Amino acid sequence: MSIAAEVVREYWAAANQRDWDTFGSLLAEDVLYEGPQTRERVRGKRNYIRFNVEGFPGPWSLDVIRVIGEGHRAASWIQFTNADGTAQQGLCFFDLDDGDKICRITDFWPEPYELPSSREHLVERY
Amino acid sequence: MSIAAEVVREYWAAANQRDWDTFGSLLAEDVLYEGPQTRERVRGKRNYIRFNVEGFPGPWSLDVIRVIGEGHRAASWIQFTNADGTAQQGLCFFDLDDGDKICRITDFWPEPYELPSSREHLVERY
Repeated sequence: MSIAAEVVREYWAAANQRDWDTFGSLLAEDVLYEGPQTRERVRGKRNYIRFNVEGFPGPWSLDVIRVIGEGHRAASWIQFTNADGTAQQGLCFFDLDDGDKICRITDFWPEPYELPSSREHLVERY
Repeated sequence: MSIAAEVVREYWAAANQRDWDTFGSLLAEDVLYEGPQTRERVRGKRNYIRFNVEGFPGPWSLDVIRVIGEGHRAASWIQFTNADGTAQQGLCFFDLDDGDKICRITDFWPEPYELPSSREHLVERY
């Protein structure tokens, strides 16, 4: 497994355990988080830990579906389960710096949508 | 670059050029495509090429933002630009078989959404 994939697996395990010390130890001081869907951005380790602790309270849990790492980059696919049992899949791209700390995170949360009628005849449903 | 990342770069280049012969040559006969957001599924190379040709007509184009490969797996992040100039980001996870053909594709298309007020004070906007 690449270093990047290992670090990202540790990152998600620490988040799931609310182990914010370990979580923080994996981040660069100048980590940059972006969510392109809302155009939200968080700069810096301290702000990013606060964003996770205060922005997502409650008894959520997450399962890692897949992590792929190559060199100093990784992508993850997780399932996030809310307190009410609803689940959402999250896709995340990571960059690590030369010290193997996570320095950039880009985060996507796709929602269900209606299948366009233009391709209904070309697919099965599951 | 891993084989998987190379194959995925060729896959997107062939799609962008509508070079369906090259595109097909990268796919396993029993390729399985899934879109979890609509719960749509396509089975087999022939159906999957038809899905791409007939399901997405018009002068779209795509740009590859990132491809990460590890072993027989890869993830890609692309930008898809529609005929009307609107753009959407696509995230895709790939599996290759032992012959380095793409045998599984899982495709996500996240849409913009409103920033929840619960984390407004924790982020910048860009």
